[in-house]
Amino acid sequence: MTSTAVRGTTLAELAEIVAAAAAAAPVWRASSAAERAGWLRAAADAVDAAADELVEIADRETRLGAARLRGEVGRTTGQLRLFATVVEEGSYLELTIDGADPSATPPRPELRRMLVPVGPVAVFSASNFPFAFSVAGGDTASALAAGAPVVVKAHSGHPELSRRTAEIVAAALEEAGAPAGSLALIEGRDAGNALVQHPVIQAAGFTGSLSGGRALFDLASGRPDPIPFYGELGSVNPVVVTPTAVAARGAALAQGLVGSFTLGVGQFCTKPGVVFVPRDAGFEELVASHATSAAGGPLLTDRITAAFPEGVDRLVTDPSVSVVAGARSAAGDDLAQPVVLATDATAVAERPDVLLEECFGPVTLLVRYDGPDDLRRALEAVPGSLTATLHSEPGDDVADVLDLLQLKAGRVLFAGWPTGVAVTWSQHHGGPWPATTSLHTSVGATAIRRFLRPIVFQDAPEALLPEPLRDASLEHLPHRRNGVLTA
Amino acid sequence: MTSTAVRGTTLAELAEIVAAAAAAAPVWRASSAAERAGWLRAAADAVDAAADELVEIADRETRLGAARLRGEVGRTTGQLRLFATVVEEGSYLELTIDGADPSATPPRPELRRMLVPVGPVAVFSASNFPFAFSVAGGDTASALAAGAPVVVKAHSGHPELSRRTAEIVAAALEEAGAPAGSLALIEGRDAGNALVQHPVIQAAGFTGSLSGGRALFDLASGRPDPIPFYGELGSVNPVVVTPTAVAARGAALAQGLVGSFTLGVGQFCTKPGVVFVPRDAGFEELVASHATSAAGGPLLTDRITAAFPEGVDRLVTDPSVSVVAGARSAAGDDLAQPVVLATDATAVAERPDVLLEECFGPVTLLVRYDGPDDLRRALEAVPGSLTATLHSEPGDDVADVLDLLQLKAGRVLFAGWPTGVAVTWSQHHGGPWPATTSLHTSVGATAIRRFLRPIVFQDAPEALLPEPLRDASLEHLPHRRNGVLTA
Repeated sequence: MTSTAVRGTTLAELAEIVAAAAAAAPVWRASSAAERAGWLRAAADAVDAAADELVEIADRETRLGAARLRGEVGRTTGQLRLFATVVEEGSYLELTIDGADPSATPPRPELRRMLVPVGPVAVFSASNFPFAFSVAGGDTASALAAGAPVVVKAHSGHPELSRRTAEIVAAALEEAGAPAGSLALIEGRDAGNALVQHPVIQAAGFTGSLSGGRALFDLASGRPDPIPFYGELGSVNPVVVTPTAVAARGAALAQGLVGSFTLGVGQFCTKPGVVFVPRDAGFEELVASHATSAAGGPLLTDRITAAFPEGVDRLVTDPSVSVVAGARSAAGDDLAQPVVLATDATAVAERPDVLLEECFGPVTLLVRYDGPDDLRRALEAVPGSLTATLHSEPGDDVADVLDLLQLKAGRVLFAGWPTGVAVTWSQHHGGPWPATTSLHTSVGATAIRRFLRPIVFQDAPEALLPEPLRDASLEHLPHRRNGVLTA
Repeated sequence: MTSTAVRGTTLAELAEIVAAAAAAAPVWRASSAAERAGWLRAAADAVDAAADELVEIADRETRLGAARLRGEVGRTTGQLRLFATVVEEGSYLELTIDGADPSATPPRPELRRMLVPVGPVAVFSASNFPFAFSVAGGDTASALAAGAPVVVKAHSGHPELSRRTAEIVAAALEEAGAPAGSLALIEGRDAGNALVQHPVIQAAGFTGSLSGGRALFDLASGRPDPIPFYGELGSVNPVVVTPTAVAARGAALAQGLVGSFTLGVGQFCTKPGVVFVPRDAGFEELVASHATSAAGGPLLTDRITAAFPEGVDRLVTDPSVSVVAGARSAAGDDLAQPVVLATDATAVAERPDVLLEECFGPVTLLVRYDGPDDLRRALEAVPGSLTATLHSEPGDDVADVLDLLQLKAGRVLFAGWPTGVAVTWSQHHGGPWPATTSLHTSVGATAIRRFLRPIVFQDAPEALLPEPLRDASLEHLPHRRNGVLTA
């Protein structure tokens, strides 16, 4: 682990950085869709062009490996380009027009509604995706797409990468014509706390731990003028396997599960952390045999490396828990080894706070259930999650389970594994607390909505309307007029 | 003022009421658009049918007058019917489908996204609209439309009306086939505080004072699992009048202003509370002459009646403030008399906390400005508002003023007055803090979104998908497939 000394941004430096973002905000607000799409693509091109350099720094700082990191660069620049498309397509503006009706009681004025950027946005980046959920990641891409300048709080796990990415993206934006102050970086916890409370900042995006996210959420909510805080905080991602699914494809399921919970050394927010399996169906043994041959790997930071065996120990301390596979990593181990634990549904229903706490790293907990009622009681104890997965076979009666899973998660998967989050128009990456703090997504096209607010113009002269709301623009932009949607 | 003794709902009663809402939630969640639209229309029909009885109670409890109250009943049932239409139209579901792409790296699954209800909702009703922002008002209508059962906290200003409305609507819903527990009423501040913290409640809507709303917002945000709190808290609704507008139509503007700030005895959240007028243009005198002949009226509650002269006194205490028109109501007056005050833009820029505090009742503050810079400095001090109004003439250079007004408000009006909020697809009733706590509206079709959360299904078998996401439904519902919107 590289340990670059991080000098925190001082409050005086923060004031200058935020002032520059405030000065850039009117330019972004007034920018056309074509301009903004061009700026986003310029940022994407610059990151792609610097991929070799950036991947080298990232691998040194995170030990995630060049192949995975190169893929993540592609995901990141793909996100920037998707948002360019979203901006050009125009639906995100939610253009809505209601004509005047002088004969109504009371007479109805003309109303023209659209969404506009909220103003400068704070982004708190994550450790586990040094590109895709970091300086130039999804929060930044969606905020810039909305027309909001961004101040990113760097994650201390990859400071040099954060600085270099910010330099490259800020330069690319300026070169493409965006104003100075469009993207800036700050470092250090104190600066981050000050950022989320700064009067200029109008919203915040966050990906990280429950404790860190909750602290920032409380600061954002406690402001004299509270701002929306969009946090993605933690998720155990329940999986349910039915007896018939084990019978039909148990070995493949075991292999898939081990691949998913060890992917990225178990450091994905969508890692399947708790798996409900029928008792005595032979699934534990299948998982054990696959897990034993799965490779360990280095964790992201020294803190995470130290926390992993502690988290496993906490689980194993519970009298219901047994070790199905894997040596518990000892303190000081360089590599984290995959661990499979098992417990009973009744124990989970009784002690969810102990047994269902998220544990970062390559560990998953199998929960044996004895029948539908046993399963239901345990599932009811599962906290809100980003994902929930069902492995069943045609003919299984899964209505009740599926109903419960939909209450628990923002993405419900069938016959797949939750790691891997496609960046598309329909993606939803969020869920009931503590998965996220809000009803919004941090991945996919609708992530842009977090950084927009509605405004409606009443009886405005055409010349004073924003460009998208003028009749000439409406001819080629999706909109609703008098209740009728035109694509 | 009728003073019906209000017995607060006990915590044991609250527990039962909330449990009934929780039991109703799955039925609402699973209901079809046709069912839900029918339930909303049944509620509207029942309120219309009981209008005579309800208006009589409301007039006794609020002294707003039968004519105004009858109009408000129409607005309220119109809202319920608009949301029935919104549910049937289906855009609110935001159906979005991305087809699988096995050739992508990594292979992309099929994703189908829609919005689903958040679960039981708390609604805190307002004093000043005993129908439209109360038991059967916009928050309730939009929550039911979303598919969420509602528990309403009655406003103490109209307890009997609240109870009777709740009885009528709950009975109508049940008769139409909705489950028991769909709509319930609680009373008392302690019960309200407990309601917003109850684990079953998943979101809250509120219309009322800044202090009351902030207290509830803090409770909602401080929960172990924070929930969204959609509050409409306070607004001074700035108006800017240019010199050329005074010259062209000063008398009509003065008459319009007086009509607007005295409408409903100045108790609308959209009352124009601060009006920027060119110095020495003769506008003050015009306003004074209209205000002198304007009628006073009774305020809603004893508390508001007592607070009005206190609020006026606070303003008059400032050395910059003079009385342009109106006798200051003395403590004990039955009727509140219209009051027009005046100050200078420099004073407003220096002491916005004193001069721009919302004052409920028929008072407005004229702010004299000496030119564009003087006006801009004062406008920058205006807090977030529901509305901002510009009265200018063609040829006026209003670009800077308009830019500033758009930052301050959710609705920008031209050549009109902010009182009167049309209930339409495009309406936005919200604004930067403290106008509202969020980016959402409490009036108009998009108010439904406050009570919905996204969910996405990955590779789901057709038979396990919710009805709206199946291919057969998509043939007649607006949706986006692979990025392409179909109306």
